[in-house]
Amino acid sequence: MIGRDDSLTLHTDLYQINMGKTYWVDGIHERNAVFDLYFRKMPFDNGFAVFAGLEKVIQFLENFHFTESDIEYLRTEVGYEEEFLQYLKNMKFTGTIRSMVEGELVFANEPIMRIEAPLIQAQLIETPILNMINYQTLIATKAARIKQVVGDETVMEFGTRRAQEMDAALWGTRAAFVGGCDATSNVRAGKLFGIPVAGTHAHAMVQAYRDEYTAFCKYAETHKDCVFLVDTYDTLKSGVPTAIRVAKEKGDTINFLGVRLDSGDIAYLSKAARKMLDEAGFPEAKIFASNDLDEQTIMHLKAQGAKVDSWGIGTKLITCFDQPALGAVYKLVSIEDENGEMQDTIKISSNTEKVTTPGLKNVYRIINKKTNKSEGDYITLQDENPQEEKKIKMFHPVHTFISKEVTDFEAIDLHQNIYVDGKLVYELPRLKEIQDYVKDNLLYLWDEYKRTLNPAEYPVDLSEKCWNNKMENINDIMEKVAKMKK
Amino acid sequence: MIGRDDSLTLHTDLYQINMGKTYWVDGIHERNAVFDLYFRKMPFDNGFAVFAGLEKVIQFLENFHFTESDIEYLRTEVGYEEEFLQYLKNMKFTGTIRSMVEGELVFANEPIMRIEAPLIQAQLIETPILNMINYQTLIATKAARIKQVVGDETVMEFGTRRAQEMDAALWGTRAAFVGGCDATSNVRAGKLFGIPVAGTHAHAMVQAYRDEYTAFCKYAETHKDCVFLVDTYDTLKSGVPTAIRVAKEKGDTINFLGVRLDSGDIAYLSKAARKMLDEAGFPEAKIFASNDLDEQTIMHLKAQGAKVDSWGIGTKLITCFDQPALGAVYKLVSIEDENGEMQDTIKISSNTEKVTTPGLKNVYRIINKKTNKSEGDYITLQDENPQEEKKIKMFHPVHTFISKEVTDFEAIDLHQNIYVDGKLVYELPRLKEIQDYVKDNLLYLWDEYKRTLNPAEYPVDLSEKCWNNKMENINDIMEKVAKMKK
Repeated sequence: MIGRDDSLTLHTDLYQINMGKTYWVDGIHERNAVFDLYFRKMPFDNGFAVFAGLEKVIQFLENFHFTESDIEYLRTEVGYEEEFLQYLKNMKFTGTIRSMVEGELVFANEPIMRIEAPLIQAQLIETPILNMINYQTLIATKAARIKQVVGDETVMEFGTRRAQEMDAALWGTRAAFVGGCDATSNVRAGKLFGIPVAGTHAHAMVQAYRDEYTAFCKYAETHKDCVFLVDTYDTLKSGVPTAIRVAKEKGDTINFLGVRLDSGDIAYLSKAARKMLDEAGFPEAKIFASNDLDEQTIMHLKAQGAKVDSWGIGTKLITCFDQPALGAVYKLVSIEDENGEMQDTIKISSNTEKVTTPGLKNVYRIINKKTNKSEGDYITLQDENPQEEKKIKMFHPVHTFISKEVTDFEAIDLHQNIYVDGKLVYELPRLKEIQDYVKDNLLYLWDEYKRTLNPAEYPVDLSEKCWNNKMENINDIMEKVAKMKK
Repeated sequence: MIGRDDSLTLHTDLYQINMGKTYWVDGIHERNAVFDLYFRKMPFDNGFAVFAGLEKVIQFLENFHFTESDIEYLRTEVGYEEEFLQYLKNMKFTGTIRSMVEGELVFANEPIMRIEAPLIQAQLIETPILNMINYQTLIATKAARIKQVVGDETVMEFGTRRAQEMDAALWGTRAAFVGGCDATSNVRAGKLFGIPVAGTHAHAMVQAYRDEYTAFCKYAETHKDCVFLVDTYDTLKSGVPTAIRVAKEKGDTINFLGVRLDSGDIAYLSKAARKMLDEAGFPEAKIFASNDLDEQTIMHLKAQGAKVDSWGIGTKLITCFDQPALGAVYKLVSIEDENGEMQDTIKISSNTEKVTTPGLKNVYRIINKKTNKSEGDYITLQDENPQEEKKIKMFHPVHTFISKEVTDFEAIDLHQNIYVDGKLVYELPRLKEIQDYVKDNLLYLWDEYKRTLNPAEYPVDLSEKCWNNKMENINDIMEKVAKMKK
């Protein structure tokens, strides 16, 4: 390492600082700017996503400042001028953030977070915020998918060795817990977040004692709770019979919790092991399974009648193997002009899904009071309040002919104040509360949104006013471009 | 957060500590144990992999100790007894590590690293070492694949916002540099590792100024080097013409480096933009492209005659999107017995690729002196020295009939001493030296191993003695299991 690793403030893209310098020289750096954070496509084609990452974002913002070594690097290696560096050196975060809270169900094309801050600050924090939220939301969603398939059986996060470096292992297992995992193998995550930790022994222990009988006995003599790993040599001929033998010999001196399968044909082996355990008088002993599992393999194993009570999930969860990135973006939707008035702003693109929705907006979840289920989410401009309406019209923002009128509803504002003028006003809940919040939230969704294959598309609609505002902004730009062409 | 984040020592799986306790009670915890670290399958089906991660492993080991807060957590939340905790508290790493160095080309089923340490220590460090090496080696390999396709054009790593949390962004961009990337957008990586940083401005700046002309002018007035992002509204009708207009107006007051395309049809747009730039008198201006690129899309763009000079790679590189995990494992191959003698050890599995290769081993790269190309890698037992042989027989470790005799060769020992009895004896090279080492190493490989689709399989062979030793170990276990069955 060359520089001193004493700050995360430079954990951003260089262009953020370069733009900041232009704004600063031009004197527009402290104009009020509003950015929306959202993603455009549902991860894993799932019917819902689970928001996670806010706690780390807050941790980051509470420590947001340029250290001496940051300034020194920018001075000597990037070459910014002294006055600009002095400005950066005194910078603190002074913005206002309205955001969904962790554990909220979230859908494509709705603002998860709304950052309102001096332009230069809002740009500098874009990259790290996306970095944290993209990954943690992805993992929480993947874990929730797995939990949908697993049901009441337990799920343990075992992926540290395959995670994409240390922060992913640590914050990934926290997000996995948010999404519904019951425990983790990562001891540091247990220490830092209070997540229950789980694990017994590895193949190495059997190899170190050179035979399973000795290894299991030694483990049983030093631990009350025992799960024996039975696939070091031969699962059915050696592993399971030896586990049973040791469980019998040790009797009440241990809690024989069961056996763990980590390779081979889990469907076949689990059924055979179940039979052996039952016949040996251990119907309560559980079967733990691991080995490249995910919601897909688990569903297939269940369809084959596999007798697994507890699932250890590694690689496929902690890396989100089938879709390792969430594409959340952070787009300018409104900015103060030279007269101090806010002006909406838009980005057009030939990739139509990349066109932004201008303006300060709120997101409401519309709960039907009769069914107690959600009718969809409803995005309005800041000055609208659907809670005061008797009736709202919800229509698809692209295929606008798809519409419905909703009455007798409750409109829940999904954004909470997290920061107001740079001051943290939100009290972080405990992790278990966040996990419970996900479970409660899922009760409002019809089952059609919760299946893991081909779920129905949950409505995320714009209010008429919000939609009209977007169209006006698009037309303005189109006219300008047409004029240029001439 | 609950506990204090003052140590990475608990960044391990709980079962490592549970096994440690068994060993400690049983008094075998300080027996000398040897573990091999290797992966079983080439990442991305590439013909070679690039080893990275050693610097961070050393950083970790230099700080390896249980802090007060670690011990307190293990005491109150996990419930280990006081004497064992006292033992942990005084633990330091005292082992010996022989390893390949960063930038070494590495192949499936050969030991990248050999850890020889007291059993309990070797187990505790398994998980974090795998966590670091798996990810960094994966990224370095992916970057090298991209570099193979890109050739002499520049590649910039732009993936921070999509990385799997912060460590992945930071150490990922370092590994990408090892594999051949030229620069990064991550300023912290510039500060910590001295990697060149790159970046100009985003769509937000154009939106903030409401039109491209004003935005480009403002940027040009505050930065000497200018790359203008031209796809905020309409690339060919507005973006490129405006960039050209500003470049002409600003003349020699700026270095007009070129334009950046971040959406739309890169093949079509780059050719059209090239034409416009040439006709306007800017043949030297470069075209920078980004938007979900990887070695596959780049190859297709080149086949279509796209005029791109510099490639910005985000998501697909930093997450290794098409294979986001490397499955390196860490297996016990030898352990001291009660008489102080080392005994080889093996793990059998019904997944045949999971059977381990016992014994203390070395890995040699066999360079043919006539061609100066590699004949393959040759794994021997510790006491063999192919450098002293006139002739060696290299044969496939599974399909043993595939064999060749090699004479007139140089056998290069790929392992270097990193730690000896707990002391760091290896001097870390500079990052640029590691990048150059990869380039030099690639010269020894025939092109057939370097193509990105269906490369030839590079030979990784066992010496006859090593192969025989493995077969003997397998037979021993098979006999034991057969006896159990009776």
